[in-house]
Amino acid sequence: MNHLLTLTELSIEEILALLDEAEQFARGSHWHIQTPGFVANLFFEPSTRTKCSFEVAERKLGLHVIPFDVETSSVQKGETLYDTIRTLESIGVQAVVIRHPEDRYFEPLRHSVGIPIINAGDGCGHHPTQSLLDLLTIRQEFDTFRGLTIAIVGDIRHSRVARSNAEVLTRLGATVLFSSPEQWKDDTNPYGTYVDLDTAVREADVVMLLRIQHERHGEKMGLTKAQYHEQYGLTIAREQMMKPKSIILHPAPVNRDVEIASNLVECERSRIFKQMENGVYVRMAVLKRALQAKEGGINNGYYFKKWSFA
Amino acid sequence: MNHLLTLTELSIEEILALLDEAEQFARGSHWHIQTPGFVANLFFEPSTRTKCSFEVAERKLGLHVIPFDVETSSVQKGETLYDTIRTLESIGVQAVVIRHPEDRYFEPLRHSVGIPIINAGDGCGHHPTQSLLDLLTIRQEFDTFRGLTIAIVGDIRHSRVARSNAEVLTRLGATVLFSSPEQWKDDTNPYGTYVDLDTAVREADVVMLLRIQHERHGEKMGLTKAQYHEQYGLTIAREQMMKPKSIILHPAPVNRDVEIASNLVECERSRIFKQMENGVYVRMAVLKRALQAKEGGINNGYYFKKWSFA
Amino acid sequence: MNHLLTLTELSIEEILALLDEAEQFARGSHWHIQTPGFVANLFFEPSTRTKCSFEVAERKLGLHVIPFDVETSSVQKGETLYDTIRTLESIGVQAVVIRHPEDRYFEPLRHSVGIPIINAGDGCGHHPTQSLLDLLTIRQEFDTFRGLTIAIVGDIRHSRVARSNAEVLTRLGATVLFSSPEQWKDDTNPYGTYVDLDTAVREADVVMLLRIQHERHGEKMGLTKAQYHEQYGLTIAREQMMKPKSIILHPAPVNRDVEIASNLVECERSRIFKQMENGVYVRMAVLKRALQAKEGGINNGYYFKKWSFA
Repeated sequence: MNHLLTLTELSIEEILALLDEAEQFARGSHWHIQTPGFVANLFFEPSTRTKCSFEVAERKLGLHVIPFDVETSSVQKGETLYDTIRTLESIGVQAVVIRHPEDRYFEPLRHSVGIPIINAGDGCGHHPTQSLLDLLTIRQEFDTFRGLTIAIVGDIRHSRVARSNAEVLTRLGATVLFSSPEQWKDDTNPYGTYVDLDTAVREADVVMLLRIQHERHGEKMGLTKAQYHEQYGLTIAREQMMKPKSIILHPAPVNRDVEIASNLVECERSRIFKQMENGVYVRMAVLKRALQAKEGGINNGYYFKKWSFA
Repeated sequence: MNHLLTLTELSIEEILALLDEAEQFARGSHWHIQTPGFVANLFFEPSTRTKCSFEVAERKLGLHVIPFDVETSSVQKGETLYDTIRTLESIGVQAVVIRHPEDRYFEPLRHSVGIPIINAGDGCGHHPTQSLLDLLTIRQEFDTFRGLTIAIVGDIRHSRVARSNAEVLTRLGATVLFSSPEQWKDDTNPYGTYVDLDTAVREADVVMLLRIQHERHGEKMGLTKAQYHEQYGLTIAREQMMKPKSIILHPAPVNRDVEIASNLVECERSRIFKQMENGVYVRMAVLKRALQAKEGGINNGYYFKKWSFA
Repeated sequence: MNHLLTLTELSIEEILALLDEAEQFARGSHWHIQTPGFVANLFFEPSTRTKCSFEVAERKLGLHVIPFDVETSSVQKGETLYDTIRTLESIGVQAVVIRHPEDRYFEPLRHSVGIPIINAGDGCGHHPTQSLLDLLTIRQEFDTFRGLTIAIVGDIRHSRVARSNAEVLTRLGATVLFSSPEQWKDDTNPYGTYVDLDTAVREADVVMLLRIQHERHGEKMGLTKAQYHEQYGLTIAREQMMKPKSIILHPAPVNRDVEIASNLVECERSRIFKQMENGVYVRMAVLKRALQAKEGGINNGYYFKKWSFA
């Protein structure tokens, strides 16, 4: 079963194969599921941006997307996630994309469900398609990861992206720098070295800004938005310290003039909207991988042979 | 106009024709509407499960499903259901699937609207596609209804399924047993005989469990979940009393370890997920019947010739 | 960029070209976008009716509609409308349909976004596709606008439709009469002459009723529904004063027996449901115009060349 749950559990070879596939889609390659193919997007935490990106990817592969309304679903009546997925499988859904507030919600499911799960974010854990789109964007720029310096800047502690990106980038041969306000450092993440922001900006090939997750974090630190921006954000002055070919990434949505100066959002160095575009291609690659591995359709006789008391 | 409002108003021949059609779909037969065809699902009571099943059925027939958001619709501003359906008809929708909290909401509509209505549940009344999928699942197992004993177990009084299934099964030649806590007996339903649960389980070819409709029903009876399960549920001990070829049905979502032991949900006798799969096929059959009868598309000159004061 | 923001900024020639195109669609003509094409409908004010009509139009043109849930979107976290549209553009969306509570929300966007915006209603401002469908319905009846008398009746002051229809009808050579309770007159709208309701009804070729926007408006005036209907509504008695070939329009949803007698909603003169049908055709025409002008797809290198500090 070709789930995509975390990047950590994929080998370098599997990650690069996904990036190669995504790059083919970026260059206009096509792949279509045998019709009719069905998927469902189960977003137990809302995320219009990620959901829209999956929707485009799914339709480009010729898939029908079955609308699944979490608010009115039986999950609200206490149905287990397992039963929900088994139900969708029964009616012909061939893969599910899930975002869920609980860390590693997928553990009890990975060996029991009959269709692949694509993790679109679990709690404070992983968000593998976000990591993949970051990787694709970096590779498009530098052709390799080996020898690059990547600065991850901002709320390291609460970011799904910081941990999984740092781990995989290190594995791919890059050097990771962290830069963060004192309160947001994460001692449990061994894959980077903390430096001050100006050093990070000066040394990095890629300045990867993190989104302030909760709108009031800055205020809790006793800083105005302008003060936060000046101390911890990518100001126009800092952008000018960057190396000539260095680029800027941000997972969006951007808090303009907080993490990054509004005027820099679409500057020459910014790959922010390019990341979003690449998101569609990596999701196409991940879905293709999941669906190819799933052989055949629903097996009518399958469901009631799993367990017997007789 | 080939509405599907209740099974009661269909003849045995019509019911069997729908089951035959559904069986064809189950075996891989295809039928496609002339493109573009449009339907809308109007769920005034939420039901993700039934809606998803209709969505899959509709798309398998090549239909476009127009999202209709009940919360923001003009119905909330006092628009009549008639005007809503006429509006959808005007913009090209060829059939509507409706779930509505009011019993027999369809009576004022059945002779006035210009497109077929498929009833996906009305109040405490009918849920004909649920009944059809139960019938299809039974027939796949036993090839006939004549001579079978069907035990309907649980909240008989509040169940849409109990009344309509008991009536149609009786008409098809089966014997219906009811088993229910005293408070949930339904004296107005003449199509079954009440027996105790152990007798029902022992004699039935089909044990049709009903869902506890309201989560707190059990508590109102002063029973814990475990007590309810022991007294009124299909326990593992009771499953062992069943006849060798008897099967278990449940309309889902299942309250595990309440109506049925969790370990029995996917046991050899269980057809619970198979019912869900069959739901798609019977809905395809019902939609095909509705759309074939509807001749032509929108008639431009039609609407304003219905009534005149001149 | 072929936005459609207001009719006021279109020339007579452009308006007539859209009506001609819509008429072709009404007569069964087809036009399909190169697949896969994507649009998104951003309804920051709910309107099931208008949204369903756009959905049908979009699918008839072969477009994929990416569901966009305003409630859970990043706009709620303070993302600008510009960034939202740029995001959609990045993932491959080729046009956006927007309804927004703010008057002229589109001004900061019209020269900055890279995909066409179709205005589906802004604040108390414009609703150009509603105006176009009214024009199409009138022209189907009378072949011209020149010399016609159009009575716009009801809540002139709060109606998006009253202002834009009066302006464009005057430009097209029609004479506009207004009839309204004293409180709802609009001194800032110079495109019509106020007359009493009986005069308006007697002289008009087209009686264009407006919807009471806020359900309690009538009550605020100290009138029951019946009193409002008698004084300011199209009663059966007034319908009989109309000229033989005059017709009735209403943007719907209709408050039956308030703005119009319930029995008149589908009378011979009524074009109310025909307007809804025409809504699909004008929206197809508007979408075709927008999408034809947009050349090529996403340009991978485009986004980060807009601004540079270097």
